[in-house]
Amino acid sequence: MILGRVVGSLWATRKPESLAQRKLLLVRPHASYRLSSGLDQIVAVDTLDAGVGDDVVVCIGSPARWSLGSGNLPLDAAVMAIVDRVELDAG
Amino acid sequence: MILGRVVGSLWATRKPESLAQRKLLLVRPHASYRLSSGLDQIVAVDTLDAGVGDDVVVCIGSPARWSLGSGNLPLDAAVMAIVDRVELDAG
Amino acid sequence: MILGRVVGSLWATRKPESLAQRKLLLVRPHASYRLSSGLDQIVAVDTLDAGVGDDVVVCIGSPARWSLGSGNLPLDAAVMAIVDRVELDAG
Amino acid sequence: MILGRVVGSLWATRKPESLAQRKLLLVRPHASYRLSSGLDQIVAVDTLDAGVGDDVVVCIGSPARWSLGSGNLPLDAAVMAIVDRVELDAG
Amino acid sequence: MILGRVVGSLWATRKPESLAQRKLLLVRPHASYRLSSGLDQIVAVDTLDAGVGDDVVVCIGSPARWSLGSGNLPLDAAVMAIVDRVELDAG
Repeated sequence: MILGRVVGSLWATRKPESLAQRKLLLVRPHASYRLSSGLDQIVAVDTLDAGVGDDVVVCIGSPARWSLGSGNLPLDAAVMAIVDRVELDAG
Repeated sequence: MILGRVVGSLWATRKPESLAQRKLLLVRPHASYRLSSGLDQIVAVDTLDAGVGDDVVVCIGSPARWSLGSGNLPLDAAVMAIVDRVELDAG
Repeated sequence: MILGRVVGSLWATRKPESLAQRKLLLVRPHASYRLSSGLDQIVAVDTLDAGVGDDVVVCIGSPARWSLGSGNLPLDAAVMAIVDRVELDAG
Repeated sequence: MILGRVVGSLWATRKPESLAQRKLLLVRPHASYRLSSGLDQIVAVDTLDAGVGDDVVVCIGSPARWSLGSGNLPLDAAVMAIVDRVELDAG
Repeated sequence: MILGRVVGSLWATRKPESLAQRKLLLVRPHASYRLSSGLDQIVAVDTLDAGVGDDVVVCIGSPARWSLGSGNLPLDAAVMAIVDRVELDAG
């Protein structure tokens, strides 16, 4: 999973029924968690009611579907946790 | 998921039966959503009738199969939503 | 999915039974479809009888398994369509 | 899988029930195992009781779900083994 | 899939039961098959008894689980074939 911050949201009326009520957030990965040099933001579905400014753990790829309790959804990114605290050893 | 714009389409008569009637679109990811420095375009299946110039949310990887309601298809990218509006906090 | 051209093939006698009769092609992604700066070629299984010089749509990752009609195969790339024509709007 | 070292951990009270008791570690991939130039760290779930300073094999993507014995979890990275010894041929 | 050469191996006693007897190899992707600029090596499970110096086809991601005949394993890379010969057209 990667760490990032919620920076915005997205409206789309034309989407599958199964995702009709779902909130789509824009998340900016923190510096150490960029998946590629060009990927500054990702669109993630939210089930934990995260808001702009929250630090979140984002699950990427196929496992993200299970954040909604089903494997039959076209979803590749989901907010998986809202971060309280990070402890990093220089080690 | 990533954000991009539909920039073209693709014809292929030799493809699996299960995808025979499906439209394949060329989508150019927006600047902040490039998956790698060399990936300027992707081929995505479309079920929402998106057209050239539309801004779309594209689902990448294994979950894209479910855009057609089945997990048994060789599909790794699908238009998942047509974007109405994006709200981005500078934060 | 990505677009590329078939540039060669590969022989391997020691492989799983389930893939014994399958052809493995070397595909070079077109410039706009490089997944990363170092990935110039991929090995893809072929079920459509593509040949050297053909432009093909390649399905990447877990969905590629379904090109052989089963999800129980160790396959991460498959020729999904042979391209007839591409139409690209400058837009 | 990739090799890395445990460098920290992460607290998050708001996360799915199924992950309530699970430890989330920060792992820094070793130099030869960076998935992209910007990805210096990943968040991985731990089931082997790894600690800061341990060298670990991390499983990335959808297979990571199975580290907890179920495919129905939003997990994309898991500590899969704690390394005792690596033997590398210059070859 | 990608092409690479076996360059070493790895010992880990603390790993899941289901992988207890499995050999973990270090594979260095050939120049045209680097998944990213920083990823010089990957750890792959081996079921074909490949050895140091062998050229191998490596299956990446979720499909790699099926190299052991089951989808319920935390595995994201597997030796899928040992290469006899590669034929590349300049094309």
